[in-house]
Formats: sequence, structure tokens, C-alpha cells
Amino acid sequence: MPLPEVDQYFYSVEISTFSVSENGKKIVFSTNLNGHYNLWSMDLPHLYPYQLTAINQNCNQIHVDSENQFIAATFEHDGDENFQLHYLPLSGGTPVPFNEAESNSRCYHACFSQNLEMYYSSNHENPFMNIYKTDLKTNETSIIQKGEKAPIVVAAVSPDGTGYIFTETYSNTHAAGFYYSGGDKLPLVPDPSVPHIIRDVLFTGDGTVYFLTNYEEEFTFLASFNLSTYEYIPVLKLENEEMKAIQYHGGSLFITTEIGVRDRLLHYEVTSAKHESMDPPCDIIKKVDSAKDGTLFILGMSAGRVDNLFKKETASDWTQLTNNKVLGISEENMIAPEVIQYPSCDGLQIEALLFNPEKEKRKDITIFWPHGGPQKAERLTYRPLFQYLVQSGYTIFAPNFRGSTGYGTAFQKMVEQDWGGGPRLDCVKGMDWLIDNGYAEKGKIVCMGGSYGGYMSLLLAGRHTEYFCGIIDIFGISNLLTFIDNLPTTWRPLMNQLVGDPEKDREKLVKDSPITYIDQMDKPMFIIHGENDPRVKTEESERIVESLSKKGIYVEYLLFDDEGHGFSKKKNEIEAYQRIRTFIDKFMSY
Amino acid sequence: MPLPEVDQYFYSVEISTFSVSENGKKIVFSTNLNGHYNLWSMDLPHLYPYQLTAINQNCNQIHVDSENQFIAATFEHDGDENFQLHYLPLSGGTPVPFNEAESNSRCYHACFSQNLEMYYSSNHENPFMNIYKTDLKTNETSIIQKGEKAPIVVAAVSPDGTGYIFTETYSNTHAAGFYYSGGDKLPLVPDPSVPHIIRDVLFTGDGTVYFLTNYEEEFTFLASFNLSTYEYIPVLKLENEEMKAIQYHGGSLFITTEIGVRDRLLHYEVTSAKHESMDPPCDIIKKVDSAKDGTLFILGMSAGRVDNLFKKETASDWTQLTNNKVLGISEENMIAPEVIQYPSCDGLQIEALLFNPEKEKRKDITIFWPHGGPQKAERLTYRPLFQYLVQSGYTIFAPNFRGSTGYGTAFQKMVEQDWGGGPRLDCVKGMDWLIDNGYAEKGKIVCMGGSYGGYMSLLLAGRHTEYFCGIIDIFGISNLLTFIDNLPTTWRPLMNQLVGDPEKDREKLVKDSPITYIDQMDKPMFIIHGENDPRVKTEESERIVESLSKKGIYVEYLLFDDEGHGFSKKKNEIEAYQRIRTFIDKFMSY
Repeated sequence: MPLPEVDQYFYSVEISTFSVSENGKKIVFSTNLNGHYNLWSMDLPHLYPYQLTAINQNCNQIHVDSENQFIAATFEHDGDENFQLHYLPLSGGTPVPFNEAESNSRCYHACFSQNLEMYYSSNHENPFMNIYKTDLKTNETSIIQKGEKAPIVVAAVSPDGTGYIFTETYSNTHAAGFYYSGGDKLPLVPDPSVPHIIRDVLFTGDGTVYFLTNYEEEFTFLASFNLSTYEYIPVLKLENEEMKAIQYHGGSLFITTEIGVRDRLLHYEVTSAKHESMDPPCDIIKKVDSAKDGTLFILGMSAGRVDNLFKKETASDWTQLTNNKVLGISEENMIAPEVIQYPSCDGLQIEALLFNPEKEKRKDITIFWPHGGPQKAERLTYRPLFQYLVQSGYTIFAPNFRGSTGYGTAFQKMVEQDWGGGPRLDCVKGMDWLIDNGYAEKGKIVCMGGSYGGYMSLLLAGRHTEYFCGIIDIFGISNLLTFIDNLPTTWRPLMNQLVGDPEKDREKLVKDSPITYIDQMDKPMFIIHGENDPRVKTEESERIVESLSKKGIYVEYLLFDDEGHGFSKKKNEIEAYQRIRTFIDKFMSY
Repeated sequence: MPLPEVDQYFYSVEISTFSVSENGKKIVFSTNLNGHYNLWSMDLPHLYPYQLTAINQNCNQIHVDSENQFIAATFEHDGDENFQLHYLPLSGGTPVPFNEAESNSRCYHACFSQNLEMYYSSNHENPFMNIYKTDLKTNETSIIQKGEKAPIVVAAVSPDGTGYIFTETYSNTHAAGFYYSGGDKLPLVPDPSVPHIIRDVLFTGDGTVYFLTNYEEEFTFLASFNLSTYEYIPVLKLENEEMKAIQYHGGSLFITTEIGVRDRLLHYEVTSAKHESMDPPCDIIKKVDSAKDGTLFILGMSAGRVDNLFKKETASDWTQLTNNKVLGISEENMIAPEVIQYPSCDGLQIEALLFNPEKEKRKDITIFWPHGGPQKAERLTYRPLFQYLVQSGYTIFAPNFRGSTGYGTAFQKMVEQDWGGGPRLDCVKGMDWLIDNGYAEKGKIVCMGGSYGGYMSLLLAGRHTEYFCGIIDIFGISNLLTFIDNLPTTWRPLMNQLVGDPEKDREKLVKDSPITYIDQMDKPMFIIHGENDPRVKTEESERIVESLSKKGIYVEYLLFDDEGHGFSKKKNEIEAYQRIRTFIDKFMSY
């Protein structure tokens, strides 16, 4: 029998999100099972999936109403991130937009009351967004709140529709929440002007609202708000553990938490105030949902295990619903990363993932991967590109430099207005650690990253070229000033906080822009971009391509006309990864 | 909620074939679930499928060896029908050809002995084919028999590999079978020179061979051959019922039979010689397989129900394994055809399928569909194009004219050397029946068909133009002489028998060729062809396109560069059907 070919790592199935009907019988999920994202369904307990849409677009939210026989779901267009609300029959069909006027704008977080009302936010009439209510019986939509100084997003609606909670976002690390009912607007925390975030708000139906916040704390925790007394109560705080999401069922909360590169799932009982770990069958939990009878459903993955859906009935073990695999490759053939720690220049501990190829296959090139975000983290997810490259003999190192999430608010804030400072030095220290420990050789590192990771790759290429033999920049930023300039004006306050003020901090932004160091960039470079990218415009890439070409430096450019800030189509993803592999192989002899 | 759109009828999943491992735990099937044909698997009892290959090619035979952890399967290339044997790991991977030299030829029916030997026929070295044996332990292949005057195909191998049965095909209706062992070649029936066919041969392992034949009978029946006495025994004959396939398990035979447009599944017990109907959950059975414990698996469909796999444990009811549906359309929303009968000009009874649209949707155009083959039949299968057109308001009529299978040998032979005679008159009578019964108007019929059906559409267009308002020819034949001329020389004897001798029957062949009547063709025409078609060359279509264009008759031509004699790719199929619909809509006003 032939050994698995590395290309097979690409043939994995992803599930972007899912939802379960109240009776737990119908599960609807957005998956690229047929090469494009579509909604598929299973009629439990039968596990064979069938297709509900042929729209070929990604979806980030699904609402299943089995009683009224419809599905509401958002779809974007070829990666443009303009997720728009659509409806379709429960049995599948052509998704119809609720409101054609919203087609070139983005809708956020639809919430449903028990009276067949849908609340959602959209930026189609107001860059700071409005909150809308659609009566699903008549399909009439009305504005119920207008955004003024900061973007507003509806976070939850009370089951009877008498009140709702919305957030006002001032920056990536400051989003306050308010309860709005009968003309009153009440903050969920005592002082909403103290920087903090609010997320995952839910009404229990018995006068309590639960939510996650990091109000006055380093790590996000569980808090509640009493709808009669308007009292804020911190409910459960965990040490060095970030709460990501909550799901409520009859006196219990299911809490997804994040500890560095791994997730946990906790069961918290409200009356006893006790919590216990639930031991989910995956390292990363992408989404949790539950049926009326308390059956829990999760979507999760691990570094060596692709997206799958699992179910847990109250007194039973987890059972796997989907059976997604990587084509012909068993989990034992996946290379799981080591989780390592190293001190940065100022002593700050940095966590990183280190993927080691099998000894006999090991090549002398190491791939250094600064993640995107920057306020995200590299975690134990299945990355086809990583498995493909590690199986081909390349060592991969992915540090969670300062600014990464999962290590507390202070750590996360360290990237703010210092994009090219501390995080870059963490990267350099990471490469030194690799060299000192025999995992890399100076001059034989390929730096590769997407978005902020592409930016960091370019910056490192310009300022520390001696480490590298090649650079791969995937929709990265080359000039922070033009990057900010091209963003919607409403993003400005957030971006001033996250990146810097283009006027006030001009000097720092120039200093931290890769283009400033274009003269020092002397290594072969491969640049990938999606034409519909709404976050980083193609000019960020094209500028580098042009400058390097003029200098006679080898540069390859791959532009996808049907992608945005990421890959939504399997064939494009495979093309990009194969080209990356070819590029790296080509420069191995340097 | 919006009503289902007619396009949704295209989003159906097909399964071309399947196979089950001996232990019944692993089912491997060839399906276009992701838009292309690939092998997928289920690990029973888990029903979620996962992909085994990314070859994107159709397969017509699968062998699953769970003990030795491999799959052998045939794959063609973009519709060229050169099915070639490949192997891959049981868990999936890249299919590897057993023998690269066979890449531009076709392999027929691989059989496996218990000693890890594979027997098969291939035409790569000999147009009359050779029978080869591959030792699967060493991957060494040797010729064990050479075809001489007629194509030979291995039909079954004895479990211990000491003998095998092969067929010699003299014509479509004459294929004799021989048992070959220790240098002896013994016919399965007393006189192999009497025209008859042999199919579905199997060794029971206890000295008996079962097979299907129509030896001295109108309808195919079950017979046996004793390996010690060489005795031929007719075992089970049914009235007006054609046996199609058999499967053996521990003293029982499972027999698929054909009665006109519908199949039956019978259980026959050898000791009691009794048979009973098994009531399968579908009208048409595409394949039957069984596990060692007697669990039966079938692949089947109905006019309103797409391909699905079903399982029946000995003492249980049928359970459905797959859950293929037409996107968003329930079975109640399918229009099932009426099965009608009408007398032809000479009194011969012709069976036909009549699809009636809902009254309020009915348009005044009727589609007349002569099936391909010609020795095939229009049966109760799911045809996306039919449902699409009927739901759009078009009446469809598909007659099983003389020459069709399922109505006995004499009926089937009636098309031989009379392609354009009797069958054409059956078609004309069918149209008259439609008109007389209010299902069609003269001059408002669209004739549409593929292969022989395309030929018949062209011929009717030339000889009976007064009935039609438009013609759709899908890879049809326009000139019987060039058609025969372009076939491999080894097909000649078969084709002389089926169509006619190009020298001896020249006059008749000219008379029966549509091109002869090109001057009378005066209706808009739409012609579709696949560039890789190995059966009907594109010149058959292009000749008509050119001639009609010159005459100023409206003609549309759609050529697919990655298809053969049929559609292997969903996107092409959808394009063709949408274009057909547009073409018909355009000429509705005639």
C-alpha cells in the first residue's frame, strides 16, 4: 500500500457553526463537505447528512425553528464578511434575504424572542449600526435603536420581548453592556466607563441575566444581572482561565473556558454554586448548543482532529455525531505539537506551539509562524497547512507573543499601540530560543503568517533579515498608515486604540510599518491576497510586490478573485498551500 | 416561506455503486456527494460518511478487503469509460493503478479468489481482450487466457482459484459462458451456439455455480451448473419477469428481477426451492451486496426518490443507511409517472411512463423522450431533468418502444438491424396516443433524447417534423454508417448484429440515418455532446449543427470538454439542464 501523500492533509472537512432545534432532533450546520460552505442537516438519531442550501457561501449564525418550520441564517459573499440574514424552509431551499437593502452591509448577532420577533444589528444605514426588530409573522422590520458614538450590537433579548441587552464597543478591549427596557438604559456593571468587555449575554427566563465580563479583573468570568433589582453580581471567577462562552439549561450553565492553547468545558450548577469539568472529546470548542431536554451539543477540534459535532445526553458519555476525518490519515498519523514556554527579552513568559517532524524526515528549514489578530492566539486547532508541512519534514514554531488572547487582559493589551515593538521582540526571542535549542539555524528560517501574522512576517523580513531564507505573507499589512486609512471611519476609534492614531502616533506607525524597511528586505518572498478582503486591501501586498520586483528580489504573488480575508473555498485553499510548499521547497537550498 | 425552486431538483446525490466488507462493518460507495464522484465510506453502525478518495472520477466496481486492509476499485477519466483497476488503503488515499500500461483501455469485472488473486479482463493488449491474473501479494500480473474471435470476460472465479468462468460475447443478445479448469473449457448450457446470454455468475463454494440465462427462453431465469458432473439445471423460471442479478448467502439466493418499469427483489431458498418477494423500499434496485452474517445491503431508487443505501438484517425490516434527498423537496412534492400501455401500428403493446404536471401549472408543450440503449428501458428512476420539467408545467412521455429490455428476448431483438423502423413507428404511435388523449398537440411536441434517444429524436425530426416545435439531441447519432465506422473494429460483429452490416445493409442504414432527412429538419434544435464520448463521436452532432446552420435553421450547440457519453460532473449536468429548460421555454410560443 502506498504511504499517505501529504496533499491528503488538505482533504479535511470544516464546520463553521451549527444549531440544534429545540426538540434536539434536527441539527443544522454550515460545512464545506462538498467543497463550498453550505448548510447541511441531520435528522437525529439518523446521522447521514443531507444538503439544505446550494448557496456556496460561509455562514456564521444559524437559528433553527422546528415549530415554525424555518431556518434563519447569515451568509457572506465570497469572503466579503458582509454576513446578511436569510431565511429558508426547515427542509432546505434557496436562502432568501430578509432585507435586500442590507446586501452590502453586515448584520450582527440575530436574537429571537418567543413571539417570533428577530432582533439584530446592521450597519447598512448607520456606520455605528442600528438595532432592528423584524416581525417574522409579517416580515416587517423597524429600527428600535440607533447607534450614536460607538457601534451598538444587540446581545440578547428577553424571552417575552419586553427588554434587550446591547453592547457599545469603544475598543477591542472595552465594550460595555446595557439593559434596555421601557425606555430605561441600565449598565450591566457598576461603572461602564472602566475598560472591560461584556460577552455572551443570556436571559434565563427567571429574572436573571448571565454574561461574561472581565470587569475589574484580568480574566473573563461569569457574572449576573438581576432584572428586578438591577444588581450586578460576580458569580464565578477562575484563576488564569478565560471564559469564552456560556450556554444555559435549567439551572445549569455550561461554560467554555480558555487556558492558553487549550479549552475546557465546565458544568456550573446555579443552586449549589459548584462547577466541574466535563472532559469534552476535543481540545478546542468552537460552539456549544443544547436542546430543551438538556442534551448538550458541541462543535470541536484538536491539533490532530478536524471539526466534529458531539452530543452528550445528561447521564451519558459523549457520542460523536459527524465522522469527519482527514482523507486516509488516522489520528495516530497526525503530529501533535509540544506546548513550550520561553522568556522574552524582558522576562515575560511566552507560550508557543512547536511541531517537530519525524527525525528521519526532518529538513533543515524551520517555519516561524506569527499568528493573526493580533489579539488572537495560536491554539490546538487542526491546521492542514501545518500538518502538511510538518509531515514533509519542516519544523514549525508558533508563539503566542504579547497581545495574544488567553493570557489575561494585561497581556492582551500589550500589543495595543505597539504593533511592531514588544510582539516583534518576542518573535525574535522565539527564533533565538529555536536556534539555541537546535530547532533552527540562523538564515534557514521561513517566516510565514496571515493578516497581522503577514504584517509581522514583513516587519521581521525588513528588520531581522539575517534569520530568514524566505518570507510568506498572506494578506498582511505593509503600511500601518494606509491600512488605517482604508478602514471604515467608524472603525477609527477602535483602531486608534489598537494600532495608534495616524496623526498623533505618526512617527511610531511609520517606524512599525514594514514598508519603512523595504531596502533591507532581500529574501525571496511569496505573497497571497484575496481580492474581496474587507480588512486588508490588496494594495498592502501589491506595494511590496512592486518594490521588491523593482529591486530584483524574487517575489511571487497569488491573488484570488473570489476570496476575502481567509479561505472560503477548498480549491483555493489547496492551491495556496501547494504553492506555499513549492515556494519553501524551492528555497530549501539557500 | 418561498416555494421550492425548480433548480433544486438538480441538487440530488447519486450513488453509482457500493460494496460491503465481509464483516458488514464497512460500506464503501461511489457517490457525487461533493459534486464529483469519489469513494466514501461509513463505519457501520455510524452513518456519517467520510471521503476516501479525491480522484473526482466515476467508479463502476468496488472490492473491499477489510482483512487485508485494501480497496480495489475501477476509475474512468472524465467520462471516457476506460475504467481502470486501482488500489488504495482501506482508510482512503490516492488510488494507484495496478498497471499503468492499462491507462487508455478498459478493464472488465475483477473477480477475487480467496488466495489474494485478482482475475480481470482488459482490452489493453488485445481488442478481443485477455483474461489476466494479478497476484495481490506480489502485484505480478500474467495473462491466463487470450481472446480470439470474440471478446472474453471473466465472470467468476472459484473461491480456491482452481477454475473460473468466462463469457464470450458474439452479440448484444448472444454471450455464452464456459467453465475453464485444468485446461478444459466446458459450456454452461448444453448448446452454446444457440443465441442466449449468460450473466451474474457465482460460485457457491460447494460445487455449484449459479447464473442467469435466457437459454431457450424469452425471459432470463436462474440456472445452475454442477462442477463435478458438468450438468446444466434450470432452477427457477418466472413468467414475464426478467432476472437481472443474483447474490448468494448460505443456501439462499437474492434475486433482483425486472418487470417492465419496476424491479422486484426475491429471496430463493435452495433446499426448499421456494421463493418469496422481499418488498424492498425502492422501485429500482441498482445493486445488492451481503455481509458474511447474511445482512443484505441494497442500492436503490424510485421515480420520486434518489439513490439510497438500505440494509436488512435477517430478521429485521429494511433500514435506510444514507439519507440522500433532493434539496429541500420532500417525496410528496415529486411527481410520480403513470405507467400506461398503448398499441403500436401492428398491435404490439408498448408500455410508457407519463408524467403529468399539476393542472394549474400545465403548459401546452409536451416532451417526448425516446430512451437510449436502444436495448435499455425507461424505468422508475429519479431523473432530475424530468422532475424539473414536469414541475415547470411540461408533460413528459417516455415509451419503451420495441427493442427495450424487460419485455422478453423477442421484444428486445426487434430493434436489431431495424433502428429506424419499428421503434420509430412505436414513437409516432405514442405521439398519436398523446394527441388523441389530450396530452399533446400536434406541432407542440419537443422531442428530446440521449444516445439512441438522440438518434431517434433526429430521425423523428427529419421524418415527422409536423409533430414538433423543437428537438433536443444529447450525444445522438446522425449517420449510422459513420457511427459504425468510428467504433473499435472489435465491436463490429456486435454492431453488425445490433445495427446492421455497413456493406450488406448499406441501403437500410442510409434509410435509417437522420442525416438522410436533413432537408426536412426545420425546427429549432439544441444539441449537446461530450468531447470524450467513446461511443458516439462529436462529428455525429457537428454534422447536424453545420447543416442546419447553413440552412438558417436555429441551432444551439453545447460541447463539454470534460464529459463522455453521459454526465459525470454535477456542474455540467446542471448547466445542460438549465440550457435545455431555456431552450424549451424559448420555443413555447410556437
